[in-house]
Amino acid sequence: MIKVGIVGGTGYTGVELLRLLALHPQVELRVITSRADAGTPVSQMFPSLRGVVDLQFVHPDAAHLQQCDLVFFATPNGIAMQQARALLDAGVKVIDLAADFRLQDIASWEKWYGMTHACPELVREAVYGLPEINRAQIKNARLIANPGCYPTAVQLGFNPLLEAGLIETGSLIADAKSGVSGAGRKAEISALFAEAGDNFKAYGVAGHRHLPEIRQGLGRVKNQEVGLTFVPHLTPLIRGIHATLYGRLTREVDLQALFEQRYVNEPFVDVMPAGSHPETRSVRGSNRCRIAVHRPQGGDTVVVLSVIDNLVKGAAGQAVQNMNIMFNLPESMALNIVPLLP
Amino acid sequence: MIKVGIVGGTGYTGVELLRLLALHPQVELRVITSRADAGTPVSQMFPSLRGVVDLQFVHPDAAHLQQCDLVFFATPNGIAMQQARALLDAGVKVIDLAADFRLQDIASWEKWYGMTHACPELVREAVYGLPEINRAQIKNARLIANPGCYPTAVQLGFNPLLEAGLIETGSLIADAKSGVSGAGRKAEISALFAEAGDNFKAYGVAGHRHLPEIRQGLGRVKNQEVGLTFVPHLTPLIRGIHATLYGRLTREVDLQALFEQRYVNEPFVDVMPAGSHPETRSVRGSNRCRIAVHRPQGGDTVVVLSVIDNLVKGAAGQAVQNMNIMFNLPESMALNIVPLLP
Amino acid sequence: MIKVGIVGGTGYTGVELLRLLALHPQVELRVITSRADAGTPVSQMFPSLRGVVDLQFVHPDAAHLQQCDLVFFATPNGIAMQQARALLDAGVKVIDLAADFRLQDIASWEKWYGMTHACPELVREAVYGLPEINRAQIKNARLIANPGCYPTAVQLGFNPLLEAGLIETGSLIADAKSGVSGAGRKAEISALFAEAGDNFKAYGVAGHRHLPEIRQGLGRVKNQEVGLTFVPHLTPLIRGIHATLYGRLTREVDLQALFEQRYVNEPFVDVMPAGSHPETRSVRGSNRCRIAVHRPQGGDTVVVLSVIDNLVKGAAGQAVQNMNIMFNLPESMALNIVPLLP
Amino acid sequence: MIKVGIVGGTGYTGVELLRLLALHPQVELRVITSRADAGTPVSQMFPSLRGVVDLQFVHPDAAHLQQCDLVFFATPNGIAMQQARALLDAGVKVIDLAADFRLQDIASWEKWYGMTHACPELVREAVYGLPEINRAQIKNARLIANPGCYPTAVQLGFNPLLEAGLIETGSLIADAKSGVSGAGRKAEISALFAEAGDNFKAYGVAGHRHLPEIRQGLGRVKNQEVGLTFVPHLTPLIRGIHATLYGRLTREVDLQALFEQRYVNEPFVDVMPAGSHPETRSVRGSNRCRIAVHRPQGGDTVVVLSVIDNLVKGAAGQAVQNMNIMFNLPESMALNIVPLLP
Repeated sequence: MIKVGIVGGTGYTGVELLRLLALHPQVELRVITSRADAGTPVSQMFPSLRGVVDLQFVHPDAAHLQQCDLVFFATPNGIAMQQARALLDAGVKVIDLAADFRLQDIASWEKWYGMTHACPELVREAVYGLPEINRAQIKNARLIANPGCYPTAVQLGFNPLLEAGLIETGSLIADAKSGVSGAGRKAEISALFAEAGDNFKAYGVAGHRHLPEIRQGLGRVKNQEVGLTFVPHLTPLIRGIHATLYGRLTREVDLQALFEQRYVNEPFVDVMPAGSHPETRSVRGSNRCRIAVHRPQGGDTVVVLSVIDNLVKGAAGQAVQNMNIMFNLPESMALNIVPLLP
Repeated sequence: MIKVGIVGGTGYTGVELLRLLALHPQVELRVITSRADAGTPVSQMFPSLRGVVDLQFVHPDAAHLQQCDLVFFATPNGIAMQQARALLDAGVKVIDLAADFRLQDIASWEKWYGMTHACPELVREAVYGLPEINRAQIKNARLIANPGCYPTAVQLGFNPLLEAGLIETGSLIADAKSGVSGAGRKAEISALFAEAGDNFKAYGVAGHRHLPEIRQGLGRVKNQEVGLTFVPHLTPLIRGIHATLYGRLTREVDLQALFEQRYVNEPFVDVMPAGSHPETRSVRGSNRCRIAVHRPQGGDTVVVLSVIDNLVKGAAGQAVQNMNIMFNLPESMALNIVPLLP
Repeated sequence: MIKVGIVGGTGYTGVELLRLLALHPQVELRVITSRADAGTPVSQMFPSLRGVVDLQFVHPDAAHLQQCDLVFFATPNGIAMQQARALLDAGVKVIDLAADFRLQDIASWEKWYGMTHACPELVREAVYGLPEINRAQIKNARLIANPGCYPTAVQLGFNPLLEAGLIETGSLIADAKSGVSGAGRKAEISALFAEAGDNFKAYGVAGHRHLPEIRQGLGRVKNQEVGLTFVPHLTPLIRGIHATLYGRLTREVDLQALFEQRYVNEPFVDVMPAGSHPETRSVRGSNRCRIAVHRPQGGDTVVVLSVIDNLVKGAAGQAVQNMNIMFNLPESMALNIVPLLP
Repeated sequence: MIKVGIVGGTGYTGVELLRLLALHPQVELRVITSRADAGTPVSQMFPSLRGVVDLQFVHPDAAHLQQCDLVFFATPNGIAMQQARALLDAGVKVIDLAADFRLQDIASWEKWYGMTHACPELVREAVYGLPEINRAQIKNARLIANPGCYPTAVQLGFNPLLEAGLIETGSLIADAKSGVSGAGRKAEISALFAEAGDNFKAYGVAGHRHLPEIRQGLGRVKNQEVGLTFVPHLTPLIRGIHATLYGRLTREVDLQALFEQRYVNEPFVDVMPAGSHPETRSVRGSNRCRIAVHRPQGGDTVVVLSVIDNLVKGAAGQAVQNMNIMFNLPESMALNIVPLLP
């Protein structure tokens, strides 16, 4: 049994980790921390977990995280980097669901996240936890930077084209749409039902923190810079990301075959039949990414449609997938969840 | 032209007042205050008002409200009672959209609202602004207590039965459902899209502030106490209240005729044909209350269905209706709005 | 392994059965029928089942249902009664998720459902599949009438009070709210997103088919007629029923203890702590019913709040629970699903 | 007073025309037709119009449309082309809200719409009713092809760039998102609340009927072919279109000034301040188009955000705007509607 701790369990990625880990046959959920809600039963805050999770939130100071085999950070940005060193030194593996270890360029990280990085040397060690790219490194990692939600959907969509050298890399466009849970369980006016409901808008067009993360990921494929325009939108659904990706083809290829072959052995990437339009609900609650590739009117623009559940494959599910890999468990353990439809 | 000021214009009742007053041919919108957002153009906070409202929010200290003919308070509870005396003394009429002047029983008010009342003597003067009950008093009032949203829907539904002495008054039930805008434009987790969306729940079953207001209103009809169970619910829509009212009939009557006659001259109450089920969207954005009355299976339980838009007939629209009455304008002026459907 | 067939798998109860049965370790899904969609892969119609269910829809004539151990009918009303006799004669057990076998009073059934019953004699044999009431009979049944969604939520809420003889039985009120999936996967204007979205309404106040079913169920508790006013409402959520139940207490009792004791051994009924307000999302996707009991202001009206997922405990999940009981499997097998929140 | 008839008033564009025309001071609403619902009061089908519209639907054969000054066709495609000739010959002006007269290339129209055109010669006469482009021709037109919803949002966004010759015309991208009312008031499974709710998807990537209409419109600006990739998406809101437009700049320019100057005199196009993200709800129920222009990270990709209410500026409102122009009325008459927010 893997002894697991969760730091910061009162947000959406926290409750989602609990949903997944509670039924994981190889996990012993030891502790879950919350500074503000220490002493509160988890199932009081999240009644969906009544009868499933019996823990109370524990103050970080009393959490004894060093006794865990693995600690997930489901915290705001800037927390994991404060605590990771001590945990690693104590032999505890760490998966950070926030952004602290995602960008290799420390200066860029500090610019986008507006703080000084507390442990740049760990950034170098950290493995970017996108199993479809980095499975081998994840297997041996002590510290995982779990990818952002948009970056997961966008990279899984663009990568087959980039790997095959099929598209112009200077003018990629990612038009992405996210459900409101992506804003987190935070009291903010813009995420109110009466604000975000029956409404659609773009945001962060001038620059979004996931932009450098996506650029870094796409750039690594061929070890070259890519030009990317990334426009995120807020759409009135709870869970789900839909990325619509545009690239200009540089030569002829059977796109459908390319994508199918690229992902033939991936348990959580589903290349849909030619002509499909994946729906976000078709992955609701599951760790799947579904992808369709189009070439409208036979022109030279390729359109990739990529959907994930932002809280699962875009956060907690991918974290559990990484855990399974790190601990030599079957990669799909506890992740065989059929999406909830309707 | 009526010179109008609005205190506290950054909430939903504030922006709704602006929507209605901006096109009112007899209103000159003079000033709108906000302590936190002084200096911000109204249309920056509410882009729907671009090209319609050119004002900036003004700090209360610089508002010169005494130069207005009428001041609306679209503030949290407890503000209007601090300022009403000075305005009235300066000859300014006041309509409070909050609850400061709604309950005649000061002790009860202080219990439910958790503060000491600042001007009990004005409570006695204040007129409860439900025109279908109090039109004559409203006409001559200086100070209006604009009714709550639930109380409006419930009283308009129950009153014809109570006035006619047709139902047992000891065991009334009001099962009411409200859209999320009823919670206000406040940063609260429970009103987030990801919390209130795709979800339905009751709240405040043990006691809700609108309970004493409804009881007071229903009790005044025959000058007797009524027994009422009031259960509010939160439903995932933005605007709208649906009250489902249950009473036990004490004698035979033509219910449909009773309701139609009661409201035949009311411009904003629409008694629907027998067998109807009014939808909240049928009043969306308008000042209407639509009502249907049923007697299922011919039993002795009468069921009244009453719908309003909580921000219009349940707040800003009713306030404008009250203003029109107070200033001898046609009661429907600026309120002839066709509901937005779909 | 139980060989299972599903008749009529293209509706919401059908896809929900598939979601649950696909991961059931003791079920071999043999055949799923559809007259209109024979030959279509199930996962083409429901992409959420890609990689999970490999079957195609089969024409009923080619389904060889007699080779199954159990057949679920996820069909419109009036289908199961045509085919049940032959299946039972062939030794196949039957669970009907529609209403064909729910009402013991054939005349009443024929009135409410507008057709002649094809096999009244089987109605007498059929067991009403509410395990919390009828577990013993279900165990030995060949034919199960799976309860309706509203009846499940209402009976589980009222039954403890009726069993204890604590409320007046002549004037019960059930004010129930359902998500739109309750209307089925049928092309109807009233269930369009642009009609049912951002809208709330009552329907069927004059009479709803679940009324006689609920009355029958509540009446059986003490073998006496009950008076019930049942008002269903349509609320803009996909899954979920919230029943708000009102009764008049006839004597003092510890309501909280009563409910807790009644359901202490029930795996799928969760009595929440005193003062709770269960949310529909707290059971989303799961087979749970969560209940809270209130006595507002200490009066003589008891208010019970009962929530279920209409497609799970209100349909497919309860059917699987019944199957588990009938086949001597652990009652929760394949039903240990953590609700999806948010 | 303009005598107005509406053909086909039971869809969303029909009820929206009624909402707008009912309060138009220069319009006398004479007749509204429906083959299926002849005899039904309009306000029975659309209770939002109770007390506002007193007409009944009339069978087309009894409609005496020749006595009107203007007839709107709010019908499915292929109806207006059957009747327009006779009306025009009788001196009646015609505005078709469907697509019959939108494409000048008859062969293209017949391919995309799958029928033979009934009156190609009228297509040549028809004026494309986008006032911001064609105001002068609209003024003198007898027959207006009212633009599609997507084409309105996309053309208003791209045109300033094309007119100024600022972007590559071979690789334009329009990533557009529409609310579900765009699918019409038709009983279709894909538009059900339980299908389209809490879900997001692209559709028609291979080709959508609005593609040739947009291409024609963009191509007319400089009288040259444009290359366009158009990807429409369905988003869970009732009203609203959000077009996110991408182009590659060919030279330096002050984009903000360009857009502001282009639309400075347009009553229904609002260029928002630099850095803005227009929300669909900021135009809900109104005839406005709001636009923001961005140049992310100072690169050579320009991003234009354009929002409209698909039923107003994208359909009925634009039709009324065209009527006002045709009949020499103030262009904004009856269209001064403040958007409903929240």
